[in-house]
Amino acid sequence: MALSIALMGVLLVACGSADNLNTGSKSSNSSKTELTGQTDSGYYQGVIKNGHYQTSKSRGVSVSQVSNQLNIKGFENGLLNISKEEFSTKKYVFQEGQYLSTAKVENWLGRKSKSNPTGLNPKKGSPYVPNYLSQISEQDFMTENGRNLSLSGMTIGLAINSVDYYTKKTDGPTLEADISDAQVNKQGKAIAAKVLKRLRAQKALKNIPIVIALYKQASDDSLVGGNFFAYAVNDGGATKISKWTKVNQKNYVFPIQSGKKSPSKTDEDAFDNFKSQVQNFFPNLSGVTAQAQYSDGTLNGMKVSITTQFYSQTEIISFTQYLQQAAQKYLPSNAPIDITVQSTDGIQSFLSRNAGEKNFTSHIFNSY
Amino acid sequence: MALSIALMGVLLVACGSADNLNTGSKSSNSSKTELTGQTDSGYYQGVIKNGHYQTSKSRGVSVSQVSNQLNIKGFENGLLNISKEEFSTKKYVFQEGQYLSTAKVENWLGRKSKSNPTGLNPKKGSPYVPNYLSQISEQDFMTENGRNLSLSGMTIGLAINSVDYYTKKTDGPTLEADISDAQVNKQGKAIAAKVLKRLRAQKALKNIPIVIALYKQASDDSLVGGNFFAYAVNDGGATKISKWTKVNQKNYVFPIQSGKKSPSKTDEDAFDNFKSQVQNFFPNLSGVTAQAQYSDGTLNGMKVSITTQFYSQTEIISFTQYLQQAAQKYLPSNAPIDITVQSTDGIQSFLSRNAGEKNFTSHIFNSY
Repeated sequence: MALSIALMGVLLVACGSADNLNTGSKSSNSSKTELTGQTDSGYYQGVIKNGHYQTSKSRGVSVSQVSNQLNIKGFENGLLNISKEEFSTKKYVFQEGQYLSTAKVENWLGRKSKSNPTGLNPKKGSPYVPNYLSQISEQDFMTENGRNLSLSGMTIGLAINSVDYYTKKTDGPTLEADISDAQVNKQGKAIAAKVLKRLRAQKALKNIPIVIALYKQASDDSLVGGNFFAYAVNDGGATKISKWTKVNQKNYVFPIQSGKKSPSKTDEDAFDNFKSQVQNFFPNLSGVTAQAQYSDGTLNGMKVSITTQFYSQTEIISFTQYLQQAAQKYLPSNAPIDITVQSTDGIQSFLSRNAGEKNFTSHIFNSY
Repeated sequence: MALSIALMGVLLVACGSADNLNTGSKSSNSSKTELTGQTDSGYYQGVIKNGHYQTSKSRGVSVSQVSNQLNIKGFENGLLNISKEEFSTKKYVFQEGQYLSTAKVENWLGRKSKSNPTGLNPKKGSPYVPNYLSQISEQDFMTENGRNLSLSGMTIGLAINSVDYYTKKTDGPTLEADISDAQVNKQGKAIAAKVLKRLRAQKALKNIPIVIALYKQASDDSLVGGNFFAYAVNDGGATKISKWTKVNQKNYVFPIQSGKKSPSKTDEDAFDNFKSQVQNFFPNLSGVTAQAQYSDGTLNGMKVSITTQFYSQTEIISFTQYLQQAAQKYLPSNAPIDITVQSTDGIQSFLSRNAGEKNFTSHIFNSY
């Protein structure tokens, strides 16, 4: 019962959700658990306790320690996608990590030392020994037993540096220690083995499936985040990782810089055509870039970002309508694509096409 | 034929558009006219010439002269809505104003003087005489005659100051001249009469219907833009305005400040309940405000803006799903509502419900 959260209140579930339990809110206010509702089956419902979202026990550690935001967003989104493979969004409820506290995560992210025996980064050394482990993320997956939610699975993400930034003395210049892919892989797996053993030592985590996924962080100046390269599914009780599944995922920035490798000549040309059409639209030039992600050479999706100056709301409307047409004509089909249109005043409109759809939907932001 | 733009190329029209003409682009490049396509029947298609959007002849005048951006967006959006009443988006194509040049608009916006005889603002005087006219916007409405687009209607928006900001000497303090509603109304209509006469003197504008609409600008510190208060439809040939139609439109900011008049106690309570639920969600407080517009006491729509700090992508997802539920439960039904969710890093997600719909759709922005 240590794993169960009594659902004293009644679950609020959005219309059309797959796991509609009860509705209403007549109950007493003591330890009331609700769910966030589900806007679409691609997302997990989350846990609300007494009207407050149940935040992570290690909330804010990544935000305070990782400088390239793309490494945080990419890590968390990618980890969710890996979780979804094991823990269906229809069956499981997502809970922010409750088993690794801020203190524990901070210690684990530190270097091993006398004062920090649980540090998962290597002891200080000379020549400089890089820090490998940069982020730890815990995701809990709950199932509903009657009116209780109980922990039924966990995913742990470990983000490994591809570059470690350090200074030799306080206020000294920032130096970079590059870490080879082979090292990222080796060190990541070694850390994962230790983490699994430590988790199994917690009574509540002994017998649940635990997925551990490894992410290679991008450098601080990268315009895309890093990528997952392996994960292991560990059945309840397993204290050793028996099998790693390789993930062949890579992010690119379009337009591809000259001299850099292109993931797909077709997609590159498609984007370049789109870009030159769009840049032609206004007399003033628009900035057009995109992030693209590939898995096993197949485009997972594109996030297109367009920045331009607008002189009227009617220009925003016309431009957005034009983009819808141009995106459909030029950009790769079959992949989900988001397009955000921004000016110095912030987002002006956005267009989106989901996987398998032909047409883009659009939204133009306005005000009263 | 002065009004006709030869459609040398072939019109590109988005799928599902009501006025599908031709598709393809085999033609020569000389003076090729295309349309932007139409993302939804609530928007006009716009005119593209030789691959470039046909921008307004007075492009940028408002942006350079009006300090409260909300007065620009609100003026242009509102003017489009008035245009749609006279010129159906299904039948007419929108063209940015081509008959009032930057020089002309700047002169008209100036004070009348020896060097500027066409100035529509009063001569300098003592005591200080305020500037009434602040913005002029021209919208052209075209119809398709075979392969030609010809001008078939025009809407002119005149924005009148409710406060005129001025200095007595260069670098002196900014002073405010308040303008009463009665003056806004009187001066606006007098200026409109002159504008109509001037437009009719242009050969191309003699015989088309011209709508003139009057907007009262909000003060520079207002968190909502101004509002339209009257418009006149002038049939082809008419050189005098025979009838003004009153517009009873007003914008509000929620939460209503104590002591300020509420447009609707029900809507005010609904918003306050939504706000307190939402602010309860995270341990850190969220800012929750809204712009609301009423016509004849009926809610036209709401733009809700939520700002909070997020510590992870999963928090953004859970919050957005929760908002969908809370918005549906608490916010006024039957009116279109947009909700944007922002952090210091910009927009994180947004939710939207169109008029007549029950459910909100949502989009969560992410990155690779």
